[in-house]
Amino acid sequence: MTNARLLQQMDFLVEVDKVKSIFRRNRVLHGDRHENDAEHSWHLALMAIVLSEHAAPEVDVFRVVKMLLIHDLVEIDAGDTFAYDQAAVLTQREREEKAAERIFGILPRDTAEEMRGLWDEFERLETPDARFAKSLDRMGGVLPSCHHQGGCWREAGVTVERVKALNGAIAAGSPSLWEYAEGLIDEAHKKGFIGSSDTELGGHGVG
Amino acid sequence: MTNARLLQQMDFLVEVDKVKSIFRRNRVLHGDRHENDAEHSWHLALMAIVLSEHAAPEVDVFRVVKMLLIHDLVEIDAGDTFAYDQAAVLTQREREEKAAERIFGILPRDTAEEMRGLWDEFERLETPDARFAKSLDRMGGVLPSCHHQGGCWREAGVTVERVKALNGAIAAGSPSLWEYAEGLIDEAHKKGFIGSSDTELGGHGVG
Repeated sequence: MTNARLLQQMDFLVEVDKVKSIFRRNRVLHGDRHENDAEHSWHLALMAIVLSEHAAPEVDVFRVVKMLLIHDLVEIDAGDTFAYDQAAVLTQREREEKAAERIFGILPRDTAEEMRGLWDEFERLETPDARFAKSLDRMGGVLPSCHHQGGCWREAGVTVERVKALNGAIAAGSPSLWEYAEGLIDEAHKKGFIGSSDTELGGHGVG
Repeated sequence: MTNARLLQQMDFLVEVDKVKSIFRRNRVLHGDRHENDAEHSWHLALMAIVLSEHAAPEVDVFRVVKMLLIHDLVEIDAGDTFAYDQAAVLTQREREEKAAERIFGILPRDTAEEMRGLWDEFERLETPDARFAKSLDRMGGVLPSCHHQGGCWREAGVTVERVKALNGAIAAGSPSLWEYAEGLIDEAHKKGFIGSSDTELGGHGVG
């Protein structure tokens, strides 16, 4: 029996290696290449551990780490959805639900249910664990854009107002992390890397 | 005070992003490019969670996940050491100790000590947690070589005897994982992807 379970577990671990080939809009901090979902998830999981003191006291850091390690696996089938692409965001949930069904379904049923439950919880943002995980996921977007002179915000012509609206989710998971992130966003705006709805800069900005 | 700690934590998190540019001899499972340390560490951390039932009962899976997330950070300064390169392995410890000092030292002292302690424990292999972590690290070498027709074993002309000697460490962390890994290695040998000390195949094999 154990052996049958091990084979299912290994099938899953081999399958999810594909997430190393799903590339994000963001770049790695030190270099010009785009970041893939696997290395992104690694960075977030390490953030959860290093920054745990900035979470609400009831947060279970190990659950948050698990959520972050698996949160992007659905993109193996559903692809990366750029958070500022409103058309893609509309169909995102449906595409990702279907992917979750297939990918977590490779695992033995008990583990599949645990993983699927963690992913659903992360998506629903109704628990302190999910909100802290989401705030780190957003930080994982703020850092590269701010290290690359506006990065994909600048490339897509996203305004500082939209950047702040989206990343305000960081505050819900950690007020002190949001204070830090907002400082970085303000600096990028002040330096002219991203515009505001008044003073549109480059790209096909959205008001 | 909290803010000063947060700045140190963020400095560390920005610095360690460099591990995304440290490439291993191994390739990603689905594709022909080399794997970097960040995505490798992500895969191992997820393995620890999914395969936890194959560890000794006293193993603390969260500690194992922490070890795996940080185990290769020293390579930012020390570079990747190919496990079958005997000359490089001789100087590895000294290079990595120095790197650990600098990199973990970026963190606030308490966290630096915790991380350094986990890394030392991983390296010394004296605890069940470290042995399970190491067995997964070795699995992270076995899988890509076996998925790529011998992969870097074949490229370096390493014999099946040396592969088994190095990866026997998997047994110390998990007998059932070793049974699985040994099966993969035997298959790679049977198919002629790696030779034995008797029937040397290609490369500059080591007897």
